[in-house]
Amino acid sequence: MAKKTHLRHLLENTDFALSYPSSIASSSHTIVLHFQRSLISATVVLRENGKMREKSLTMDTLNPQVKAVEYAVRGPIVTKAGDIERGLQQGQKHPFTEVIKANIGDSHAMGQKPITFLRQVVALCSFPELLDSSSFPEDAKQRARRILQGCGGQSLGSYSASQGVDCIRQDIAVYIEQRDKGVPADWDNIYLTTGASDGIVSILKMLVSGQGRSRSGVMIPIPQYPLYSAAISEMEAVQINYYLDEDNCWALDINELHRAYQAAKEHCHPRVICIINPGNPTGQVQSRKCIEEVLHFAYEENLFVMSDEVYQDNVYSPDCQFHSFKKVLYEMGPEYFNTVELASFHSTSKGYSGECGFRGGYMEVLNLDLEVKAQLVKLLSVRLCPPVSGQAAMDVIVNPPLPHEPSYLQFHKEKRAVLGALAEKAQMTEQILNTVPGIKCNPVQGAMYAFPRIFIPPRAVEESLGISPDMMYCLRLLEETGICLVPGSGFGQREGTYHFRMTILPTTEKLKVLLEKLRDFHIKFLKEYASLEEPKR
Amino acid sequence: MAKKTHLRHLLENTDFALSYPSSIASSSHTIVLHFQRSLISATVVLRENGKMREKSLTMDTLNPQVKAVEYAVRGPIVTKAGDIERGLQQGQKHPFTEVIKANIGDSHAMGQKPITFLRQVVALCSFPELLDSSSFPEDAKQRARRILQGCGGQSLGSYSASQGVDCIRQDIAVYIEQRDKGVPADWDNIYLTTGASDGIVSILKMLVSGQGRSRSGVMIPIPQYPLYSAAISEMEAVQINYYLDEDNCWALDINELHRAYQAAKEHCHPRVICIINPGNPTGQVQSRKCIEEVLHFAYEENLFVMSDEVYQDNVYSPDCQFHSFKKVLYEMGPEYFNTVELASFHSTSKGYSGECGFRGGYMEVLNLDLEVKAQLVKLLSVRLCPPVSGQAAMDVIVNPPLPHEPSYLQFHKEKRAVLGALAEKAQMTEQILNTVPGIKCNPVQGAMYAFPRIFIPPRAVEESLGISPDMMYCLRLLEETGICLVPGSGFGQREGTYHFRMTILPTTEKLKVLLEKLRDFHIKFLKEYASLEEPKR
Repeated sequence: MAKKTHLRHLLENTDFALSYPSSIASSSHTIVLHFQRSLISATVVLRENGKMREKSLTMDTLNPQVKAVEYAVRGPIVTKAGDIERGLQQGQKHPFTEVIKANIGDSHAMGQKPITFLRQVVALCSFPELLDSSSFPEDAKQRARRILQGCGGQSLGSYSASQGVDCIRQDIAVYIEQRDKGVPADWDNIYLTTGASDGIVSILKMLVSGQGRSRSGVMIPIPQYPLYSAAISEMEAVQINYYLDEDNCWALDINELHRAYQAAKEHCHPRVICIINPGNPTGQVQSRKCIEEVLHFAYEENLFVMSDEVYQDNVYSPDCQFHSFKKVLYEMGPEYFNTVELASFHSTSKGYSGECGFRGGYMEVLNLDLEVKAQLVKLLSVRLCPPVSGQAAMDVIVNPPLPHEPSYLQFHKEKRAVLGALAEKAQMTEQILNTVPGIKCNPVQGAMYAFPRIFIPPRAVEESLGISPDMMYCLRLLEETGICLVPGSGFGQREGTYHFRMTILPTTEKLKVLLEKLRDFHIKFLKEYASLEEPKR
Repeated sequence: MAKKTHLRHLLENTDFALSYPSSIASSSHTIVLHFQRSLISATVVLRENGKMREKSLTMDTLNPQVKAVEYAVRGPIVTKAGDIERGLQQGQKHPFTEVIKANIGDSHAMGQKPITFLRQVVALCSFPELLDSSSFPEDAKQRARRILQGCGGQSLGSYSASQGVDCIRQDIAVYIEQRDKGVPADWDNIYLTTGASDGIVSILKMLVSGQGRSRSGVMIPIPQYPLYSAAISEMEAVQINYYLDEDNCWALDINELHRAYQAAKEHCHPRVICIINPGNPTGQVQSRKCIEEVLHFAYEENLFVMSDEVYQDNVYSPDCQFHSFKKVLYEMGPEYFNTVELASFHSTSKGYSGECGFRGGYMEVLNLDLEVKAQLVKLLSVRLCPPVSGQAAMDVIVNPPLPHEPSYLQFHKEKRAVLGALAEKAQMTEQILNTVPGIKCNPVQGAMYAFPRIFIPPRAVEESLGISPDMMYCLRLLEETGICLVPGSGFGQREGTYHFRMTILPTTEKLKVLLEKLRDFHIKFLKEYASLEEPKR
């Protein structure tokens, strides 16, 4: 049916040519209708018997695991935002003049400037002739030389080892030791990755096995970053939801972990617990006590721990501090530190550098069985290596200029400026959102997102049949104001509650405009669906 | 048992410390033995009851699909070569002074120099301050400006769209049209990828479904590039082998395709045919007639066609010419061109640029069902985007300097030098190998590899119990000469035949040394296992 509708649409809306080459007519009695219109090219071949020639790959024959994947951060709202943006450029009229994208943690796209030192090192590695140029500082040259020494043929264009360039892995180990106040790090446990996503997927892939009740279960926070749910769908693992406590600043409650675990044990084999700290989309920073509880739980239940720590540099609240899972594990004593299997993930994409496009990242994996380790390296080797320029960018993040080096001052000025602005915007976002009736926002303690709860009047919920109410809300917001957010349903939320995720990445000025437009929209929206009950604050 | 042996090994070979902190002793009655030795750190915790604390992830609980993956190009021989190399650096004695790695198509690692213009563009994109420098040519600056215009915030550090940067996709479409003498290319069908591997895995992932006899079958050449068999294992699809004709320069024989297809239909649902042209590891270049036969076969049997064309610029034999599957499909008429689903793959890693480390690549996908296309974009979006610096490198390859531009002469001089040297080495490799009794090498018409057949005497075959005879051969070759090749068994070969894959990438001088050492080794090897029968030529 979908095909017929599509065909009818094409017939009505397209200039088409009927091509009927004699060679084909004589050889196979086929008529070819060839539609071509702007970007869409669709062709239907009618055989003599009137049946369409079937495609080998259709929605019916598509891998059902692929079909099951959902990824809201680049979902339908974002596609629509792109369409509207192109429409605006072509002179279409909308009640706004620009689309403000606050859907994805893409710092540079929102105007953040790259860290000069990082880009100098990458440029020097890319074009080593620049090593002779006097316009590059010595410390950047020294970093570039060291990286190139570690590359085959001293070229960024060689494959690195599957685990990454040795000297970069060594630099990462030193960085982790410093970050964790002396907790030892072995560079043999470090694996460079293509962004953090790649590492997360690789580790999950190792852990998925079994059928039916012995199928691997993966515990993930709700709300979560949808890479997790997408990977779990794709691998046909069992997703085990543990709910973060919205009333307590999205804290992780150990009792909820136990509840989720016990319930899941009935129908699967829970094997992994994933934690995102600082939280995405929820922006909370986990307390040391809570981390210890999680690790104790993982120890007791023999779970593999995956700690997504890509926002480790993004902590804004003066009451909060980032504690790595590894450091806490160490402090719990050798019985824990030497046994609990832990993979932690970091990336070039977030923090103060925001270098998403380079797809750099690493993971540190502790206590992996030696044979399994060899299997992990084998698995990674099929993709040959992570992008070496991304590895170089990662190296700068773990090996920044030292106080005595020429780039030190500028580097720290730039770093402070980025993190300072983010802290300011985190606070502003929370404050303004909490002035809006029917919106309640937890403090943005870290990461790059607010995940406020929004009151959607019952009548609006009723009217949003077919799509989730917060999707309907975000679509209307986009159409009426040009603001692009992601509905909470894309991340998961307690039933009957509604949220959206917005980044705090637009410039302060633009973020203010966004928040004010959002406030006006929400008030109008509430009025439109005015009901007898007062929206909760 | 493996654990016990490992423990015993550690006890006998390691200095170890018995740590028994009072906190632990009192809290959990546990003794911790902590072994640390060079790069390997292994810890065993003995609980009071004497049982070891189990790891959650062991060879027994590892995803069996991961276990099934094999990837010879970075397999045990390569690991061993790395060990020997480190040993040499530390002063260990071997019958040679250096390891010559001819196991992987890693051009820069073997001394090939990067193309200046490509690196200039990447450096300019990475550090746009250089756009003001007079030491960069205008055409490189123009390319960099255009790429940056296509990036969010004009930064290489932004995520690109999941399909890649628009203007790069447009450049690729123009390139394909020129390459294929005017066959239309729509940039909406172009997807940037993380090397070609990423694209190949994504397309395969879409095509895998069904259980038992309706499980998807994937036709691959034997010998093949082991990415295919690895991906098929990982996805639990059915591998359908069609054998290339060694006696006919590794040509693809259409009758063999039919045989393989008919045999496979009994136990699975053949859905895809993969072709590697020019061939890896076999180096043949497919004739136009043969491509047409394959496409006709795919049309008749409703197969999805995946054509791996990453060596399209690597054709050396004056009698051969690269024909893209797409161009041939077009020339077969609209009934074919408008219906056969075809994905073709290209990459920055091979050709004359050899930029493996950038992980750049693209695929062009024809006749994809429109809904499936949306599913593909969704699938790609979970990984966010391919590395943007790799996309920039890809752009240079499809959009090189034009005759009137300042970099034209140097670019073409460099390109010619690389391809000329490869052609010379391809010929030399074939010639020298064919002088060795018991080695027979087909012409290296294209790509970067020779895949000669080697005679292994029956006694040597008998003695190699447990490992494949060509693995044994390559291990001995490595240990005795320092030459690192990949055994043919890693790529697949007809039963009872033995081969190895070697790259032609070492410098001419080093390649000559390699080939002479190889000849001497082979003659010695044959003598050692001298049998009554004469080795076949």
